Amino acid sequence: MEGEALSTLCTPALVVDLDKVKRNSERMIERWQNLGVQLRPHMKTHKTLECADIMTGGSRRCIVVSTLAEACFYADHGFDDILYAYSLPFDKVERCAALSERLDLFQVLLDHPHALDQLKKRPLKDGRLWHVWLKLDCGNGRAGVLHSEAEALRLALAIAGTAGVELTGVYAHCGNTYNCRGVEQIQAVAQETTDLTLQLMEKLKAAGITCKSSIGSTPSCSHPVKDMAQLSEVHPGNYGFYDVQQSVIGSCSLEDVAVRVLTRVIGHCPHRNQLLIDCGWSGLSLDGAGILPTGYAVIEGHPDLKLLSMTQEHGRVEPISGPLDYSKYPLGSLLTLIPYHSCATTMMHPVYYVHSEGRLLGKWTPTRGW
Amino acid sequence: MEGEALSTLCTPALVVDLDKVKRNSERMIERWQNLGVQLRPHMKTHKTLECADIMTGGSRRCIVVSTLAEACFYADHGFDDILYAYSLPFDKVERCAALSERLDLFQVLLDHPHALDQLKKRPLKDGRLWHVWLKLDCGNGRAGVLHSEAEALRLALAIAGTAGVELTGVYAHCGNTYNCRGVEQIQAVAQETTDLTLQLMEKLKAAGITCKSSIGSTPSCSHPVKDMAQLSEVHPGNYGFYDVQQSVIGSCSLEDVAVRVLTRVIGHCPHRNQLLIDCGWSGLSLDGAGILPTGYAVIEGHPDLKLLSMTQEHGRVEPISGPLDYSKYPLGSLLTLIPYHSCATTMMHPVYYVHSEGRLLGKWTPTRGW
Repeated sequence: MEGEALSTLCTPALVVDLDKVKRNSERMIERWQNLGVQLRPHMKTHKTLECADIMTGGSRRCIVVSTLAEACFYADHGFDDILYAYSLPFDKVERCAALSERLDLFQVLLDHPHALDQLKKRPLKDGRLWHVWLKLDCGNGRAGVLHSEAEALRLALAIAGTAGVELTGVYAHCGNTYNCRGVEQIQAVAQETTDLTLQLMEKLKAAGITCKSSIGSTPSCSHPVKDMAQLSEVHPGNYGFYDVQQSVIGSCSLEDVAVRVLTRVIGHCPHRNQLLIDCGWSGLSLDGAGILPTGYAVIEGHPDLKLLSMTQEHGRVEPISGPLDYSKYPLGSLLTLIPYHSCATTMMHPVYYVHSEGRLLGKWTPTRGW
Repeated sequence: MEGEALSTLCTPALVVDLDKVKRNSERMIERWQNLGVQLRPHMKTHKTLECADIMTGGSRRCIVVSTLAEACFYADHGFDDILYAYSLPFDKVERCAALSERLDLFQVLLDHPHALDQLKKRPLKDGRLWHVWLKLDCGNGRAGVLHSEAEALRLALAIAGTAGVELTGVYAHCGNTYNCRGVEQIQAVAQETTDLTLQLMEKLKAAGITCKSSIGSTPSCSHPVKDMAQLSEVHPGNYGFYDVQQSVIGSCSLEDVAVRVLTRVIGHCPHRNQLLIDCGWSGLSLDGAGILPTGYAVIEGHPDLKLLSMTQEHGRVEPISGPLDYSKYPLGSLLTLIPYHSCATTMMHPVYYVHSEGRLLGKWTPTRGW
């Protein structure tokens, strides 16, 4: 396979442009080095060892994961200083304890006193401490103690005051940047999340407690505000690959997107003015429905085409307006889809094909499950 | 694991009720035996050896697949008489030829004269024939030659008249039954697809050609019309598992659905009147958006709850009306999701946990890719 053209791949196939991944990753590393803030890249978009190597600058240290399967996968392959940034799931406490006792630094996250109770019930061996981040909701509206509630400070103090447990930091995910359009809106959310997080840090300091602070999302970490330099860490993840969604938000340009799904024309349907392609939702995911004028993806080099609908193994493509010129799309010809949401598209693929300037270099195999 | 309760599983987890799979499969086998029609079950919903064994009544013969990866997987494990029911993809002709030369009976499908040209260019070794089904579109609006076009007969005759190629049959997928509500509507589509297919068979007969006929979809094959007894084969697939969608269409009752996703409560959000669960789209898929009053799934035993939205690893659950009683849903407690579309949900899971009456029996591992 090595050295061959992308057109030799059977389709659908997820292809990764290694040069773009490296460039996106190096820019993020440099940006946060310059600001003096520790970058802790999130692995959830790609879930591979190779991309983790690039995103950590080869250190294999200081990462975030979204599942315990990822944590175990990275731990099994020499990674350490792993933050499992997911409200402590009560069914996985023993597995978290095992990782805490095995790694130099395994960190968990919680947002409820009952979760702290779970940790108390399972003290770690050899005098080790549970390293615990408090999850703060600064307006994202998903997990975390709401920033405006007294419970935020109360729970932070409870963590800090518990034997066998260390309050490692305060963690906020500004996923509400995904509703933004343009740098100005992104930076307004970044500023607000930073302010609210630092306000809690001040309250903790007043109570005599110092710990780390971390916020993140690819939009905010691609366009940081100055005050983010006061944070200890940031934890974006999608930026290694980026995607159409990030370009619409304003995190990147479409040229920065490092992933594509290659697909082939498998049907001509002149009675419906449509083409069929061999990529359905099993190769792309259904993420992004109803958002783009070009449908479920951008079809590279064909801004006049729309990926209208998909079933499991078929995609229906039609012109945005006018009749389709079938002579431009013979059966068997390749089309290239730029995914709306790379986190969702990568999950549909058991293997990613990596290339440089269109020449295949090898395969990356992600981990799966929980 | 064997013999343990489902509650011992880490979540999210896809669980399969073996007794229901067997019952659904036996009913389908018996229905078509009684009608004297060969059942060729589709593997695309589950993609496992174990479920294929059940659906073929242990014969390991006469199956349909949607990807060549499935074809190879089943061929590698002793299955034969495999129909790759997908408009012949030009990038996979050599792999199809290898399977045709290796198995007793490997069958392909096409809907365009250029695909026939591809087969002519790759004659099979040892005097073997390409076994070819003509794909007919009887109103489904996806792949296939449109039933009303003269091209349907012309292409069938061209296949039959080509050296090294055999016209095995005419194949129609009545996926338009998925728009139906209730048995009457399903049977109207089943009748129409049957009529249109048999009309082409008559024209072929008049031209001196006899071959097989096959139509299918889980709705039509769960509620066949009498004339379907004139077909050679049927090829439903989803019925082994069924799902909420099939119960809404009217193919089955909700009690027949054999798959669930187990999930746990991981967050209480009283300021939003919501719960968080540990199943996002990575464990359920985004299929079914905007259709059910209960959101992306049915939450078993809790008809008052709605799975409102999902991100990668989180689901937001809220009451359909009124305030949430959090005392009923403590952190760590289990909820059971009945998937809207089992074909989409199974694809998100690297392993399925199989049980009988809530006691674990083992795991099934699906194949993936293309």
